Amino acid sequence: MTSSPASKRQKVSSSSATPAPPYELLYWPAMPGRGEHIRLCFEATQTPYADACNEDRKTGMGILMPLISDKNTGDATNPPPLAPPVLRHGELLLSQTPNILLYLAPKLGLAGPEGDEDGIYHINQLALTALDGLSNETHDTHHPIAVGLYYEDQKEESKRKAADYVSNRFPKFFGYFERVLQGEASKGGEWLYGGQLTYADLVLWQCVDGISFAFPVAMKQMRASGKYGKVFELYERVRGRENVAAYLKSGRRQKYGNGIYRHYPELDAEEVWNVESQK
Amino acid sequence: MTSSPASKRQKVSSSSATPAPPYELLYWPAMPGRGEHIRLCFEATQTPYADACNEDRKTGMGILMPLISDKNTGDATNPPPLAPPVLRHGELLLSQTPNILLYLAPKLGLAGPEGDEDGIYHINQLALTALDGLSNETHDTHHPIAVGLYYEDQKEESKRKAADYVSNRFPKFFGYFERVLQGEASKGGEWLYGGQLTYADLVLWQCVDGISFAFPVAMKQMRASGKYGKVFELYERVRGRENVAAYLKSGRRQKYGNGIYRHYPELDAEEVWNVESQK
Repeated sequence: MTSSPASKRQKVSSSSATPAPPYELLYWPAMPGRGEHIRLCFEATQTPYADACNEDRKTGMGILMPLISDKNTGDATNPPPLAPPVLRHGELLLSQTPNILLYLAPKLGLAGPEGDEDGIYHINQLALTALDGLSNETHDTHHPIAVGLYYEDQKEESKRKAADYVSNRFPKFFGYFERVLQGEASKGGEWLYGGQLTYADLVLWQCVDGISFAFPVAMKQMRASGKYGKVFELYERVRGRENVAAYLKSGRRQKYGNGIYRHYPELDAEEVWNVESQK
Repeated sequence: MTSSPASKRQKVSSSSATPAPPYELLYWPAMPGRGEHIRLCFEATQTPYADACNEDRKTGMGILMPLISDKNTGDATNPPPLAPPVLRHGELLLSQTPNILLYLAPKLGLAGPEGDEDGIYHINQLALTALDGLSNETHDTHHPIAVGLYYEDQKEESKRKAADYVSNRFPKFFGYFERVLQGEASKGGEWLYGGQLTYADLVLWQCVDGISFAFPVAMKQMRASGKYGKVFELYERVRGRENVAAYLKSGRRQKYGNGIYRHYPELDAEEVWNVESQK
């Protein structure tokens, strides 16, 4: 699948008789970031979507920036978004990563077994927990003091934060997901919930992938410990899916850089963890 | 309304012919914390619920602790919770504050105008944003390095973090909610969405209340600035509602202490903000 520029897609849609509104993702260009969780849902299910800022940076940013302006009060039906990612679907405009995932999941077949009415709440719980511990907290390892400052201005604090994060938070969150996969509600331990791929699996996959980029030394130790075998098996299982594998090889997959997941060797070093843990 | 102990309530329920399952909140006793968002939904709508750990600490903790044990793998239908709050409703067990709110909202009439199918996603977006910026980030002002360390062990970092938080994040998040209230989708600016009380209003209320306890000096300045008039009007509007007012006077409302919202005068002082902002 390829996705056409937002402008083109909108035209196609409005000229058709009973058009399904196109999905349009608005997110910072040239980085996976929080938008990646949403891209993965589209890609894993071969759902057409526009990735506006990556397909045509100027046009995309021309839509995104006014939306997140501190002058925007939204429109008649949509409150303003505070920050990207933003999803536009017809007249509907939504922000907040877990919220966009929640909205898309039933439409994309990523909301668990049919007829399991409350399953979406279990899946939402798992996605929120992964985003809390393995995305938001990971970001804070290089920005523990202020998002508005450079990493270099909070480097000493980052060392302390990363030491705690690697020593205590990795085992806590990886251990949690290992238990989820050991649990009966996973229905076999291949997927987090209900015996089938849901968006919680895709969220966890992206978190593990990002952390593997940011903390390769720590992750090698985590793998070698043997304590989180089911989590890493799930990681490989997702990566091996045909649609996901094709996407990861495509130009649509953005490279890691200065986003949530950053590789600073001085934060991913055993001697730093040991020194900082003593403070 | 008063809520009876969990054990008693369960008995009453199981002896009735077609029992509605009781709502049971499991959260740390003797603090508002994240559980407060859930309590407020019950209280504002006069929905009976059990607050297990506050009603009978030993019994409540006897239910909660095995649930969040690092040995628990959940049961046949429920993945394990990582941390409280946990909601038990019949056979269903849910965790993650915004997830529990999402589940309860339609049942409690806090999910926006009837027939507004996508309204819940707007409300969820607003609740998630308030929890991100005005609860999770507030917590991090006194724990910027590690949740497992004492505040005293990260006091210097806390000063830097709090200076940035007060200077940059308060205006960002309060400014955002002010714009939401100015926007058309609020339908009049009294409530965040759809012209009626939703759980997003209750979440924002609790955040503003907690911050007023933790940062009274900063909040006085925020009020005096006149920039966030609609947010503070909403705050008073929620507090003035009969059920909410009665609850706040009751023994069911817990006192602030060493939870998310803590009052450390050294973090709430103009001279500290000025000095730390220069670093």
